[in-house]
Amino acid sequence: MTHVPDTLLERLLEARKKHHLPSQVRPLAQAFAPQLLGVLFPHFAASVVCSEDAVTEDVIELGESLARLERSIATLHETMPEKLVERFLAALPEVHARLEEDARAIFDGDPAARSIDEVILTYPGFYALALYRLAHALHRLGLPLLPRLLTEHAHEKTGIDIHPAATIGRRFCIDHGTGIVIGETCVIGDDVKLYQGVTLGAVTVEKALADKKRHPTLEDGVIIYAGATILGGGTVVGKNSIVAGNAFLTVSVPPNSIVSRRSEVRPRSTTATLEELDWVI
Amino acid sequence: MTHVPDTLLERLLEARKKHHLPSQVRPLAQAFAPQLLGVLFPHFAASVVCSEDAVTEDVIELGESLARLERSIATLHETMPEKLVERFLAALPEVHARLEEDARAIFDGDPAARSIDEVILTYPGFYALALYRLAHALHRLGLPLLPRLLTEHAHEKTGIDIHPAATIGRRFCIDHGTGIVIGETCVIGDDVKLYQGVTLGAVTVEKALADKKRHPTLEDGVIIYAGATILGGGTVVGKNSIVAGNAFLTVSVPPNSIVSRRSEVRPRSTTATLEELDWVI
Amino acid sequence: MTHVPDTLLERLLEARKKHHLPSQVRPLAQAFAPQLLGVLFPHFAASVVCSEDAVTEDVIELGESLARLERSIATLHETMPEKLVERFLAALPEVHARLEEDARAIFDGDPAARSIDEVILTYPGFYALALYRLAHALHRLGLPLLPRLLTEHAHEKTGIDIHPAATIGRRFCIDHGTGIVIGETCVIGDDVKLYQGVTLGAVTVEKALADKKRHPTLEDGVIIYAGATILGGGTVVGKNSIVAGNAFLTVSVPPNSIVSRRSEVRPRSTTATLEELDWVI
Amino acid sequence: MTHVPDTLLERLLEARKKHHLPSQVRPLAQAFAPQLLGVLFPHFAASVVCSEDAVTEDVIELGESLARLERSIATLHETMPEKLVERFLAALPEVHARLEEDARAIFDGDPAARSIDEVILTYPGFYALALYRLAHALHRLGLPLLPRLLTEHAHEKTGIDIHPAATIGRRFCIDHGTGIVIGETCVIGDDVKLYQGVTLGAVTVEKALADKKRHPTLEDGVIIYAGATILGGGTVVGKNSIVAGNAFLTVSVPPNSIVSRRSEVRPRSTTATLEELDWVI
Amino acid sequence: MTHVPDTLLERLLEARKKHHLPSQVRPLAQAFAPQLLGVLFPHFAASVVCSEDAVTEDVIELGESLARLERSIATLHETMPEKLVERFLAALPEVHARLEEDARAIFDGDPAARSIDEVILTYPGFYALALYRLAHALHRLGLPLLPRLLTEHAHEKTGIDIHPAATIGRRFCIDHGTGIVIGETCVIGDDVKLYQGVTLGAVTVEKALADKKRHPTLEDGVIIYAGATILGGGTVVGKNSIVAGNAFLTVSVPPNSIVSRRSEVRPRSTTATLEELDWVI
Amino acid sequence: MTHVPDTLLERLLEARKKHHLPSQVRPLAQAFAPQLLGVLFPHFAASVVCSEDAVTEDVIELGESLARLERSIATLHETMPEKLVERFLAALPEVHARLEEDARAIFDGDPAARSIDEVILTYPGFYALALYRLAHALHRLGLPLLPRLLTEHAHEKTGIDIHPAATIGRRFCIDHGTGIVIGETCVIGDDVKLYQGVTLGAVTVEKALADKKRHPTLEDGVIIYAGATILGGGTVVGKNSIVAGNAFLTVSVPPNSIVSRRSEVRPRSTTATLEELDWVI
Repeated sequence: MTHVPDTLLERLLEARKKHHLPSQVRPLAQAFAPQLLGVLFPHFAASVVCSEDAVTEDVIELGESLARLERSIATLHETMPEKLVERFLAALPEVHARLEEDARAIFDGDPAARSIDEVILTYPGFYALALYRLAHALHRLGLPLLPRLLTEHAHEKTGIDIHPAATIGRRFCIDHGTGIVIGETCVIGDDVKLYQGVTLGAVTVEKALADKKRHPTLEDGVIIYAGATILGGGTVVGKNSIVAGNAFLTVSVPPNSIVSRRSEVRPRSTTATLEELDWVI
Repeated sequence: MTHVPDTLLERLLEARKKHHLPSQVRPLAQAFAPQLLGVLFPHFAASVVCSEDAVTEDVIELGESLARLERSIATLHETMPEKLVERFLAALPEVHARLEEDARAIFDGDPAARSIDEVILTYPGFYALALYRLAHALHRLGLPLLPRLLTEHAHEKTGIDIHPAATIGRRFCIDHGTGIVIGETCVIGDDVKLYQGVTLGAVTVEKALADKKRHPTLEDGVIIYAGATILGGGTVVGKNSIVAGNAFLTVSVPPNSIVSRRSEVRPRSTTATLEELDWVI
Repeated sequence: MTHVPDTLLERLLEARKKHHLPSQVRPLAQAFAPQLLGVLFPHFAASVVCSEDAVTEDVIELGESLARLERSIATLHETMPEKLVERFLAALPEVHARLEEDARAIFDGDPAARSIDEVILTYPGFYALALYRLAHALHRLGLPLLPRLLTEHAHEKTGIDIHPAATIGRRFCIDHGTGIVIGETCVIGDDVKLYQGVTLGAVTVEKALADKKRHPTLEDGVIIYAGATILGGGTVVGKNSIVAGNAFLTVSVPPNSIVSRRSEVRPRSTTATLEELDWVI
Repeated sequence: MTHVPDTLLERLLEARKKHHLPSQVRPLAQAFAPQLLGVLFPHFAASVVCSEDAVTEDVIELGESLARLERSIATLHETMPEKLVERFLAALPEVHARLEEDARAIFDGDPAARSIDEVILTYPGFYALALYRLAHALHRLGLPLLPRLLTEHAHEKTGIDIHPAATIGRRFCIDHGTGIVIGETCVIGDDVKLYQGVTLGAVTVEKALADKKRHPTLEDGVIIYAGATILGGGTVVGKNSIVAGNAFLTVSVPPNSIVSRRSEVRPRSTTATLEELDWVI
Repeated sequence: MTHVPDTLLERLLEARKKHHLPSQVRPLAQAFAPQLLGVLFPHFAASVVCSEDAVTEDVIELGESLARLERSIATLHETMPEKLVERFLAALPEVHARLEEDARAIFDGDPAARSIDEVILTYPGFYALALYRLAHALHRLGLPLLPRLLTEHAHEKTGIDIHPAATIGRRFCIDHGTGIVIGETCVIGDDVKLYQGVTLGAVTVEKALADKKRHPTLEDGVIIYAGATILGGGTVVGKNSIVAGNAFLTVSVPPNSIVSRRSEVRPRSTTATLEELDWVI
Repeated sequence: MTHVPDTLLERLLEARKKHHLPSQVRPLAQAFAPQLLGVLFPHFAASVVCSEDAVTEDVIELGESLARLERSIATLHETMPEKLVERFLAALPEVHARLEEDARAIFDGDPAARSIDEVILTYPGFYALALYRLAHALHRLGLPLLPRLLTEHAHEKTGIDIHPAATIGRRFCIDHGTGIVIGETCVIGDDVKLYQGVTLGAVTVEKALADKKRHPTLEDGVIIYAGATILGGGTVVGKNSIVAGNAFLTVSVPPNSIVSRRSEVRPRSTTATLEELDWVI
């Protein structure tokens, strides 16, 4: 029979003892995300019954799941929001309306989309945005931990990482989306569009700056193409500006700017071996 | 007991009523993807029995799954392809042969690969390519929706997003792959290799342009290094060209080109605080 | 009843016959990864019992799972490591200590992190690093295939692709992380930090170079911002250097360097249509 | 593709339309039974945490499950009990105390039992009795349908069929139990013991008699051996009587009776073939 | 590591080699039973959608499951029925009508039943009868093995064991049911009622008699109370006869008979210890 | 939110604290039963691979499961058997041989059986006997608790309750089987056959008699028909005797006896209402 080394035993036992998170939080949060989406959008539900009773039942169960998560998290945090479930349900119609508007905006801006239903069903950008908007509502009500677990769930599914505390305006479009990062203190206006691989991040990472604005601001109508990296809490991309693919920006630009740097093109020596590539690219 | 706000009830009920997609399409498609791969490549099957009966049974069940998806989708689309299952099965030997060729090419081009079996089993690039080639076959037979759900499944698993309508030649290699986007009207030749984070995307996003070529063309033998972004329907990267990492390209380049822009290097003030970084990087 | 074409039947039968991997390896590896993490970090366990018996039981079962994987893989590889389970268990305390140190370093460097438990529970960077360190330990003990399956599992979950043979120092920080690639022969010092989308890759891909160093070296204290691509086995980024976002680097730089190229900013013609964008960005 | 006959289609569609039971009632009830037992007896729980928080959480979730069943059933029945969950939880301590007493009585009366824990864990008689006592509590609170589903669940698991409306005294023992039937209007005193295959049933089955006492009464201390059948609403088995195996009784007997009929024994012709058995047994 | 004894290895290997049944038959049959019931009676379905499309889909999938079972069984049996699926679907409306009639008869005959829906949902007698009637239809179409697996599934769930080849008339009632056995060559008329524990069995068990009638005949209107045992192929219980509880019968009785033997009652010595019971009961 | 009564909380907390069984024992035992059967008889395995490697792997995992159960049970019992796994594996070939012999005997004695495979696959009598013989082997090796859990599992599935400590000879046949009870100290010879509903039980139930023989002895070649009840530790049914259906026996009978009592037959008043039945049957 396997021998278990004493040092391992001690270390693992100690790790369990000093561990404070209730063990159910993670699986509960991972079950809550699809439940929440399935209630709001029938596209994500396993079966769809169109009766008031069925909808009511689904919402009640949603409330119960949230209450259970709340109780788990409360073992960790001293102050918890009052009447969380009630206020969250009251906030849902507004969030739902915003997401329908977002889905329409994505549809309008993508020639490849055939219907709004297809956008909701298959676009990872919509999936991540939906979980962000819901997590943001919970964050605003003062619930800790769960908002982050919800957006991290979306991150795992889609590669899109939006911090639940970020501020994002109406009709927000994400296309493809893998690799997008939107930091905690970002402020994003209306009608903004991001392509995959865009970072809206921080430069400075001093723990002491936790309460400062560390991430950029994008004003209304900005478009950021794939792979652009924009850093810094003071960086403001002015209204209707366009940031080209793979741009790197750490300073503010005025409205109606174009930020870009195209690569250079030169002939390749066809006799060079691949080994020599280090020197030429 | 939880109170369900009336506005929420009305909104959700309405959402269900106007929702047209049959609720089973999504889970069926997500089950179909691994079933399809498991039939073609034993690496993805839970158990492997080497008898004609077992293979026949697996193919019959594959056909049944496809037929069921077809019936679900048919509730939504007026015109559906004739004899879909039959024609799809007939197309499989060709797709399978292509994928074996792809796997060999990936193996030949990656010093880290130890065997072709390892490539098939563990390379996300192969996984995404396999689902693309199968989805593309279904797309060519005229089936709507399912091809997109299959490639979106691969996108979720691998971070590689290939539109099922794209055209991709033989011996196509993807290395690592996270963040790759290949748009709907891309045309890619033979022996092309892409690294992670490469975008082959569109610039213009007018809905009216849905039928125009909006994404680039890569000719035979092109290599694109990590993070390069290439945009535009008229952009052609000529034969055997090399696009370096993080390049940004929106114009055509002739055969045997090198596209690149190295970053600048300068000394860092070691006395500068991290806060000052905004100004220097 | 569905007709199964003969060519398909033959092809699939042949594929099964020439397939050498035991069919259980993949699902076993995918179950092993969370089991391993759950034993080491209660955050990932479904239920946590704080008794010596419970810990011992969990470790014994972990050993059994590893032994089973070992037996499966042994049907494929001629030489296998001696006393694998025993030596792996003996190595775990060291790996666990390293990972606790990593978690603390991530916490210290991220103003958004509220506790070390939150880092372990929700940060994909920690998840990928943990599986890398464990896979690396197995790789060093000489076990083939499984290390790669473990890091590929992390890649699928997080978009972070670290080769199990790479060498990575202490207090390694990954933030966000989607799109990171760290190649097989990378050497990374202590206190290094990488942001999302960073590639540490190879240029030359000749099969014959499998035993050569093909990926860069990062010395102690280096920071690489989002989207930077650094290629080549001879490329050394000197101590305490900073590589800015979207930088592209294929040559060595001395200690205390800054590598960067900001994009250009110019005004946008507000009368230009989106169609004209190709020409201006 | 399979042809679906029109008559079948019509018939099944009609069956669905006239069906009134909410489709979730059955699976909900089947999940409620083990949940209920698991809360009351850790022997049936998958994991056991000994903290007030954990117990409280389990009880709250039990209440939620009951509330959901109540809502489902309410779509069918006009009048439903007030404050069901609250009153049921208030009744549980008494039921739990009774069941602990029952378990002790079974243990005391069975030489083969090694511990009370073993009785609770492995005796089908205890399992069926526990679900009966819980179902009976719900029945007394006025909840329709669910009590019957709970005892039917126990029937399926154990072969013991106790109607939830039956009246059963303290320290009730069932040994083995398969085939026991205890009818709706049975009245059973304290310290009664039943062996497997005992029927306490009705003779007359007129629908009009639904409100009459149709099943027997067993006074305190009665023992009924395996396979006895006792029928009739007026049949009273007096205090401390013993009914022998396979007895058949449809009349009352005074206290301290023995009810029995031994079989006759005669020699068997060893030359008779098995075929001749019809004539001799 | 566990040592596997050679004799065990050889024995198990040999057992696998001489085993002829396709390994999937058992799980397929166990999944087919609830699928079949769920299609015919919404009470057993997880979700109920009242549209022609949904019904059609369910029937098509039912046909596919049956076809798959047929293919599995065909690897074992030389002659298989023609057009099995088609003929079975064509037979279903008749079976469904019979079962609705049965459910009504059970309801009419049981004062404890509150509605026909409750009978279908909760009565094990109905469950076993439904699977018998369906298995009998398959048996008559000439399909081997599956009918037996279906009734054995019902046996496991309900303790009621009806051979699929038995002949049973209309409006057949089973109450409670545990322990009922109805043999292969039984012939049962209309309006017959059986209580739990009734055996309709064979006496002679010579293999050579496989084609002879070995089990009793019950004419119309017969009632058999709990625990009665009736044996023999020539035994006929005449019209409207009543067989009392625990009766034992191996000869025929004319119409309007009562078959019974009540037990004797005598006083119990209250001074006798339980140990002396052997001598008195 | 649900209020949890204090008395309930206290009671449940106390119940958990005084509960000694490791919570995993029950689910582990329920998973062990089918695993064990699946290794010995391919009929019960989900997939069957005919290679030495596959068999070896299955046996090793079986040993691991048993070892885990052993460790769980050891937290409860002071003395545990030495080398349990090793000795149990060594005992398996003998048990397997016995069970094959049993299956053949059942086949030979049942005209309805079409093949030995069918007997193994579908006969509950074989299922219960197989688990009894395996549990008996574990019991003889001195392992507590698990043998009882295994036979209780069989009891739940088949309604056949055989105590693991009973002694049963070769070629033992059970037909149908529901309701059979075979007590702890029964001794059964070779070539015995039991029908459903047979009890071989105890009369006296004094706890003090736990070590005495309390259940009957059946000598070689005895046949017991359905529903017979035979009680008492001193009761011996002599060689080749036949006990008829529903017989009740508490005394010994010599070899070649027939034990029987047929019921009486008399005419039924066809004018009597069903209500008057109490008086006549």
